[in-house]
Amino acid sequence: MHRSSAAAAALAASSLMCAQVQASPAVHVFSTAITEAEVLQMQKGWCDGLLAISAAYQNSGYDAAKAKAAAVIDGAYAFDYGPVAFKPTYATGPDTIRTTREGALAYFVGPDPTIPKFRDKKLGFATYRHWVKCEVEDYVVQLLGSTANAMGQIILTDSQGQTAAPEKTWTFLRQLDGSVRIVLHHSSAPFDAR
Amino acid sequence: MHRSSAAAAALAASSLMCAQVQASPAVHVFSTAITEAEVLQMQKGWCDGLLAISAAYQNSGYDAAKAKAAAVIDGAYAFDYGPVAFKPTYATGPDTIRTTREGALAYFVGPDPTIPKFRDKKLGFATYRHWVKCEVEDYVVQLLGSTANAMGQIILTDSQGQTAAPEKTWTFLRQLDGSVRIVLHHSSAPFDAR
Amino acid sequence: MHRSSAAAAALAASSLMCAQVQASPAVHVFSTAITEAEVLQMQKGWCDGLLAISAAYQNSGYDAAKAKAAAVIDGAYAFDYGPVAFKPTYATGPDTIRTTREGALAYFVGPDPTIPKFRDKKLGFATYRHWVKCEVEDYVVQLLGSTANAMGQIILTDSQGQTAAPEKTWTFLRQLDGSVRIVLHHSSAPFDAR
Amino acid sequence: MHRSSAAAAALAASSLMCAQVQASPAVHVFSTAITEAEVLQMQKGWCDGLLAISAAYQNSGYDAAKAKAAAVIDGAYAFDYGPVAFKPTYATGPDTIRTTREGALAYFVGPDPTIPKFRDKKLGFATYRHWVKCEVEDYVVQLLGSTANAMGQIILTDSQGQTAAPEKTWTFLRQLDGSVRIVLHHSSAPFDAR
Repeated sequence: MHRSSAAAAALAASSLMCAQVQASPAVHVFSTAITEAEVLQMQKGWCDGLLAISAAYQNSGYDAAKAKAAAVIDGAYAFDYGPVAFKPTYATGPDTIRTTREGALAYFVGPDPTIPKFRDKKLGFATYRHWVKCEVEDYVVQLLGSTANAMGQIILTDSQGQTAAPEKTWTFLRQLDGSVRIVLHHSSAPFDAR
Repeated sequence: MHRSSAAAAALAASSLMCAQVQASPAVHVFSTAITEAEVLQMQKGWCDGLLAISAAYQNSGYDAAKAKAAAVIDGAYAFDYGPVAFKPTYATGPDTIRTTREGALAYFVGPDPTIPKFRDKKLGFATYRHWVKCEVEDYVVQLLGSTANAMGQIILTDSQGQTAAPEKTWTFLRQLDGSVRIVLHHSSAPFDAR
Repeated sequence: MHRSSAAAAALAASSLMCAQVQASPAVHVFSTAITEAEVLQMQKGWCDGLLAISAAYQNSGYDAAKAKAAAVIDGAYAFDYGPVAFKPTYATGPDTIRTTREGALAYFVGPDPTIPKFRDKKLGFATYRHWVKCEVEDYVVQLLGSTANAMGQIILTDSQGQTAAPEKTWTFLRQLDGSVRIVLHHSSAPFDAR
Repeated sequence: MHRSSAAAAALAASSLMCAQVQASPAVHVFSTAITEAEVLQMQKGWCDGLLAISAAYQNSGYDAAKAKAAAVIDGAYAFDYGPVAFKPTYATGPDTIRTTREGALAYFVGPDPTIPKFRDKKLGFATYRHWVKCEVEDYVVQLLGSTANAMGQIILTDSQGQTAAPEKTWTFLRQLDGSVRIVLHHSSAPFDAR
């Protein structure tokens, strides 16, 4: 740098600036990264939503359960934004993997032609049994920046005290507005070795 | 896998499923990655916005320019979502780096106490000269997933045919709704070696 | 900007610079984003690896299969970098979800106490049947920047012409050196509604 | 789900599994997200490297400084992986923005034809003055997942007690092996309003 008097003046200005800068406010932090706590919060929210749908069905019937399911799906999944990858636990056949809000709604409260019927009742995962407890057991959490993966189980207990323990993989994605959405959900029953 | 007749039935079911699967619709693709074309589009949009603010000031005065600047900022920057990192070209002093919408607005149309005044007129970058041309010259584009960086120059020409060529770094961030926002913008005048 | 003669000289310098800049080389692009083509390539690579392990077992026995499996795992998975989330198709019990290279090796070629034995043979997924064909059927591909998800099936055919069609979710992660790794792999048998 | 005795057995198996799962080890966490602490550590590392290069030049001459600069660059920047976006403080002309290791080396220790000479000495930024202190003043830190941005100043003091305060933008990128690299570095002198 050429030390002209102009440059010397610039250095003086820099020095002044530094003094002022050192009095600057705290660093402003902007983060899109998803934390482990947010992953657990999303999973607990999913559990709470499932129990709420199941309770709505038991207490108020199908229409109430369907309305609750729509609210849960719209609040937790990213169907508004693109094809969510959703593989429900008990679905079979060519529609096992679904990408739409309608597919998720059918799964939670039915009627869903891909879900085996229980005594001819057209029900969904949240309604064919009265779920009263939902616990998350994560094995792996992967914080990948604006997305996070979790793999583990949820342990469901119904009003008869019977349990189911589907194995689950989830991908969560942060929106710039701060909310977090489910973009992938693969749920499978424990392998049956019969 | 235990080959019970049940398992054999499961295999048969699998075979059937495959036949159906092979008739499945095309893959659904969900992408949050920013492309090079989107980076160039965002930069062109910024240039077009700057020229529109400058024209509004020349044709309709300060209030029109300020309204246009507000629209440009709200459409292109992420101030709604967190602290944008913005280092304008000609700003000096402790407020050189700003993180708010107000700071950006003051920069584009003034009054901005950190911008040296031209003959005591309180003007901003888009209004102190009548910019009529804005060209982007990128040197490096970094596609980093849901964000992208670009570093280069913009070459501005005013109505007198004089140019300015600030060196710029930008970071763009994709929202889940598909829109892309500026989260970082560092602009500096070419080093003056006097 | 104050139009001192010094500033005028700076403008002149800027103009000169522009002329030179316009002769600058092409933009340098640096990308960490994973493409759909890379996702398909990774899945085909996984299929090819599985068939190679199965062929090694048939042709050369367990040790050859184990050596091949180690090479496939080290080339495709991210076990060197952190806990991979791996839920194999036929595993059961508390070790169903595994995070280590050893767990993956045991799955592919056994012995794996979590895999139901076939006629008391301690085999793995690649060795208990002679797989001769592996086709990928994706339903959803999610390009999330430096990671990508895929959900679908693979359709496996053995030397007897029997098939299996596990439903799979994968997450791939780009390394800065350009290679892509599997960080998550959830495989489940189609739900058996018996 | 069809309640065959087989399914009942599956439920029983699930129940057993849950008991085992609840005894599973802690969650395995895999993170590629960059933390604010890592950003500060990278910036401090850059400062320490600059002072080490400057000290090497003062104490041992050009060759020692160049060797130190090579080590600092190879340890902190991502030149091995792609075009780093680097806009040094005092560079001018068409090579102002550089993307290669050689360009960075020339900048730190010279000779660099784009850097104005000081009394005809072909020196670089780390060698033209004897830097003895380097402080980081961040204004904004953006944690964007596997990348992070920081914008602020560094305040440099030389052996004469004079300071310089370049305004800096950095982008850091995590590698899967855990290391963090500089992929973008825009440094500019405070605007000189003369």
